[in-house]
Amino acid sequence: MFHLFLPREENFFALFREIAEQIVRAAHEFERMLGDLGKSAVHSSAIKDIEHRGDEITHQTMDLLHKTFITPMDREDIHHLITRLDDILDFIDASAQRVSLYEIHSAPAEMVALAKICVQAAENVKLAVEALSNLKKPDGIAKCCVEINRLENEADVILRASVARLFKEEKDTRLLIKLKEIYELLETVTDRCEDVANIVEGMILEYA
Amino acid sequence: MFHLFLPREENFFALFREIAEQIVRAAHEFERMLGDLGKSAVHSSAIKDIEHRGDEITHQTMDLLHKTFITPMDREDIHHLITRLDDILDFIDASAQRVSLYEIHSAPAEMVALAKICVQAAENVKLAVEALSNLKKPDGIAKCCVEINRLENEADVILRASVARLFKEEKDTRLLIKLKEIYELLETVTDRCEDVANIVEGMILEYA
Amino acid sequence: MFHLFLPREENFFALFREIAEQIVRAAHEFERMLGDLGKSAVHSSAIKDIEHRGDEITHQTMDLLHKTFITPMDREDIHHLITRLDDILDFIDASAQRVSLYEIHSAPAEMVALAKICVQAAENVKLAVEALSNLKKPDGIAKCCVEINRLENEADVILRASVARLFKEEKDTRLLIKLKEIYELLETVTDRCEDVANIVEGMILEYA
Repeated sequence: MFHLFLPREENFFALFREIAEQIVRAAHEFERMLGDLGKSAVHSSAIKDIEHRGDEITHQTMDLLHKTFITPMDREDIHHLITRLDDILDFIDASAQRVSLYEIHSAPAEMVALAKICVQAAENVKLAVEALSNLKKPDGIAKCCVEINRLENEADVILRASVARLFKEEKDTRLLIKLKEIYELLETVTDRCEDVANIVEGMILEYA
Repeated sequence: MFHLFLPREENFFALFREIAEQIVRAAHEFERMLGDLGKSAVHSSAIKDIEHRGDEITHQTMDLLHKTFITPMDREDIHHLITRLDDILDFIDASAQRVSLYEIHSAPAEMVALAKICVQAAENVKLAVEALSNLKKPDGIAKCCVEINRLENEADVILRASVARLFKEEKDTRLLIKLKEIYELLETVTDRCEDVANIVEGMILEYA
Repeated sequence: MFHLFLPREENFFALFREIAEQIVRAAHEFERMLGDLGKSAVHSSAIKDIEHRGDEITHQTMDLLHKTFITPMDREDIHHLITRLDDILDFIDASAQRVSLYEIHSAPAEMVALAKICVQAAENVKLAVEALSNLKKPDGIAKCCVEINRLENEADVILRASVARLFKEEKDTRLLIKLKEIYELLETVTDRCEDVANIVEGMILEYA
C-alpha cells in the first residue's frame, strides 16, 4: 500500500511532483512571453533552462529506477510516466524556441487561446501527479484526468479552425508555415498531457 | 493455451475484433469520401464518430487490463496492440479532417491510390486480429502480416513519387502543403498497420 | 553476469553489433552523397539497401527474443534497444530519399554539418553497443553516451539556426520546405542516437 513506503520509494513521487512544478512554470512563462514578444529571447531562454531542469529530473528518476529493487508501482509505469512528463516540457520548449526563432512579433488570438489551454492542462497535470502519492482520494485525480481530456479536445478544435483560417486568410505563405508549426506544437503539449492523464488513470485502477 | 481461456480473458479478443471492425469501417468511409467530396463534412463527421468509438474501446481494454490478474498474453503486448490499433483510427481521422478542413475539392489519383491501400491494409489487420484468438492457423495470420508489409512498402513508394510530383507540378504552394500533409498522414496509416502486424507476428512466435 | 552467457544469448549482442555497423555505413554513405549530388540516386539506393538489411536484423532479433526463454537482459530493454537502433537507420534513409527525390543539387553548409554530426553520433553508438557485451569497462560506454548527448545538442542548435536562416534568406519557398524537412530529419537521427544512449546508460546502471 502507498502509505507504507520506504524513504527511497517516496523519492519517485517527489521527482514526479518536481517535474510537474517545472511544467506549470514553463507553461506560465510561455503565456507571459506571448504578452511580451519584444523580449521573446529572454522568455525562451528561461523556458530552455526549465527544460534542462526537466532533463535532470528525468535522469535522476531513471537512475533511481535502476537502483531500486522494489518500486512503489510498476517499473514500466514509472518509466512511461516520467518520459511523458518530460515530453510535455520538451514541447513547451519547442514552441517557445519557434516563437523566438521565427521572430513572431504579434501573437494571433488562436495562439493565445492555445497557450491558456496549455496552462490549464499543466495545472491539472500537477494536481493529478501530486495526488498520486496519496491514493485515498482517487475521485480528485479522476476529475483532473477528465478535465485534461476535455482541454485536449478543445485544443484540437482550436488547432483545426486556426489552420483552416491560416490557409484562407494569411497571405504570407512563410508566416503560414511558421504559425501552423507553432499551433501544432502547442496542441501536442496537450496531447502529451493527455498521455500523462491516461497513465495516471491506469495507476488509479491498478493500485487504488 | 488459447482454447482454455476464462470468459474475462476472452473479452480482450472481443475488444480487439471490435476496434478492427471500426478501422475497416473508417477506411471504407474515407474512400467513399474521396468520391463524394461535395459532402466531405458529412463523411469526416462520420469518421470522427468512429474514432470516438475507438477511444472508448481502448479505454475499456485498459480498464480490463488493470482489473485482470492473469491475462491471455503478455500485458505489455496487449497494451501495445490496443494502442497501435487506436493509432490507425486516429490517423484515418486526421486524414479525413484535413480533407474536409482544407476544402479539397478534387482528389488527385495518388490520394485515391493511398486510400485504396489503407482499405486493404485495414482488412488485413482485421483478418489478423480475428485469427489471434485461435492460433491453430498461424499460417493465415502470417500471410496477412506479409501482405500488410507489402502494402506499407507500396504506400511508401506512392508517397515519395507523389510528393516529388507535387514539387514539380503543383504551382499553388499552399495546395502543395495541404496535399503533402494528407499524403503523409495516409502513409502513416499503413505504418501503424505494419506496427500491428509486427506485434501480431511476435505473438504467434511466442504463443503458437 | 554477462561473462556466463550461453551461445544463444550471445547472439543478441552479435545482432546489436551488426545493426550498429550498418548505421555507421549508412551515415558515411549519406555524407559521401552530399559531396557527390550528381549521383544522389545511386547513393540513396545504397542507403535503402542498408536500411533493408537493418529491417532483417531487427526481425531476427525479435524472432530470437520470442524463442529465448532466458534473455541476457530485460526483454523490454532488448525490444526497445533494437527498435531505436532500427529507427536511426530509418531516419538516415528518409533523409537520403528526400535529398534524391527533391533533386537537391547543392548541399548547404548546414546540411553538411548535420551529416558530419550524424557520422560522429553513429560511431559513438557503435562503440557503446560493442562495449555492451563486456560490461567490465562501463566508463568507456558512459563516455560514448555523454558524447552522443553533446552531439544531439549541437545538432539541435544547428537545426534552429539553419531554419531561422532559411526563413530569412531562402527566397524560394518550395526549396525552403524541402530543406527544412531534410534538416529536421537529420536532427531526428541524432535524437534516436540519444534514445539509444539513454537505453544503454540504463543497462549499465542495472547490470554492471
